[in-house]
Amino acid sequence: MSHQPRRLKLLISYDGTSYSGWQRQSHDVTIQGEIERNLSRMTGEDIFLHGAGRTDRGVHARGMVAHFDTISSISCGVFKNGLNSLLPGAIRIHEVIEVEKDFHARFSALQKTYSYLVYTGDVQPPDIRLYSLHRSKQLDIRLMKECIALIIGTHDFSSFENSGSRDKDYPFGRGATRTIFHAEIEESQDTQVLTFTFTGDGFLRNMVRNLVGTLLEVGRGKVSVYEFEQILLAKNRSAAGPTAPSHGLFLQKVHYSAPHH
Amino acid sequence: MSHQPRRLKLLISYDGTSYSGWQRQSHDVTIQGEIERNLSRMTGEDIFLHGAGRTDRGVHARGMVAHFDTISSISCGVFKNGLNSLLPGAIRIHEVIEVEKDFHARFSALQKTYSYLVYTGDVQPPDIRLYSLHRSKQLDIRLMKECIALIIGTHDFSSFENSGSRDKDYPFGRGATRTIFHAEIEESQDTQVLTFTFTGDGFLRNMVRNLVGTLLEVGRGKVSVYEFEQILLAKNRSAAGPTAPSHGLFLQKVHYSAPHH
Repeated sequence: MSHQPRRLKLLISYDGTSYSGWQRQSHDVTIQGEIERNLSRMTGEDIFLHGAGRTDRGVHARGMVAHFDTISSISCGVFKNGLNSLLPGAIRIHEVIEVEKDFHARFSALQKTYSYLVYTGDVQPPDIRLYSLHRSKQLDIRLMKECIALIIGTHDFSSFENSGSRDKDYPFGRGATRTIFHAEIEESQDTQVLTFTFTGDGFLRNMVRNLVGTLLEVGRGKVSVYEFEQILLAKNRSAAGPTAPSHGLFLQKVHYSAPHH
Repeated sequence: MSHQPRRLKLLISYDGTSYSGWQRQSHDVTIQGEIERNLSRMTGEDIFLHGAGRTDRGVHARGMVAHFDTISSISCGVFKNGLNSLLPGAIRIHEVIEVEKDFHARFSALQKTYSYLVYTGDVQPPDIRLYSLHRSKQLDIRLMKECIALIIGTHDFSSFENSGSRDKDYPFGRGATRTIFHAEIEESQDTQVLTFTFTGDGFLRNMVRNLVGTLLEVGRGKVSVYEFEQILLAKNRSAAGPTAPSHGLFLQKVHYSAPHH
């Protein structure tokens, strides 16, 4: 029996360590590929999963959102439990809800929040080694905080974009200009972890990792606050610091307007 | 040039996921084996590492202690940094200090503390899946706390010992009697993690995992507080609940009297 098509939204977390990123690839194991394969298995349909965005190889997520359409009558709860029993523990489905047909995981997204974790103690505990960068050299947090405040607002972030990588079709016609609503660095004395958090209306390819890489250069005294400001104004990738490694980065949350469900 | 032999003490953490436990084995990769191999490589000596105890396959440590003797003149700092650069990130050396010749990682140990972590939320976050058991069914924490209080003090823990496994040579002549100084369950509302902590003068094989397995049966209402007490008094392994899996268990700390260093 075939049913009216429904649109379902998934809230997903994953440990990106062993995956070739989010996006489906024919010869590599990816998060999108694994979830699609199991949804197709559950429904008998050829399911296409639309994610809120891509994450690169090795990047983690605590709040990826995706949607798919199905004519199956499988309930949201059965989808959630079924996927969690079929998928490896590195990929978890936290929520499955039916949404309006005009909801789109990517185009309806208003903001995204990314976190980047840096362990600053002398010796990195084994159980966080896959989920945080280790930097044991002394960092000047005050200077880093001064710089991270400079990126809040609307800027051309070309200096922090990896070349040849911009998504052509979206967002339409705004080039490398993005608005950052919130950016901060939190220190935990207890865990010796620095958490960089960025919320914006969109992020260029590797933008968060390039920002963190450059902010860490500020922390080490290699780049001054003035130079950081000049890098932002330069609109030129070669001006900025190195790209921080993928394993410290988490897609934390995708924000939508309230009434989608 | 050969030097006076020194005894060095190591403070070690590890992610036990991919190791066949602590103890050296000819055909399997173990923590002791990996550290010994690299110490032998650094010193050119045939190093024998004495651990404070063994941990089973899959068990983690945040505070394992071990010692070894060497005639090399390598400094403690160089041992620490050298080991950390040679070892995989799953094994970390937090401290290397010279100790008196009468210090013995195992025989000088007065107490040990183990922790066992249980994630109690609906869906286990991927980044803690290797470091906590997942139990999403409702647990009665109050009853579990009542039972864990019963094991504090000196008891014959035969009911929580895996058979045929007692270490024959140590501790001398006290059978299955052990003293538990501290045992508690802490709940974090924030992380939805239950932490079971046990401090005692020694632990029988699988004792912590058998205690946790039985306490979880209490939490689920399968074993009453009265029955738990009877299990402890029965001195018979078949009376107790199942052995909780290894991946939730951490050797947290080994306690020594103060003046060893």
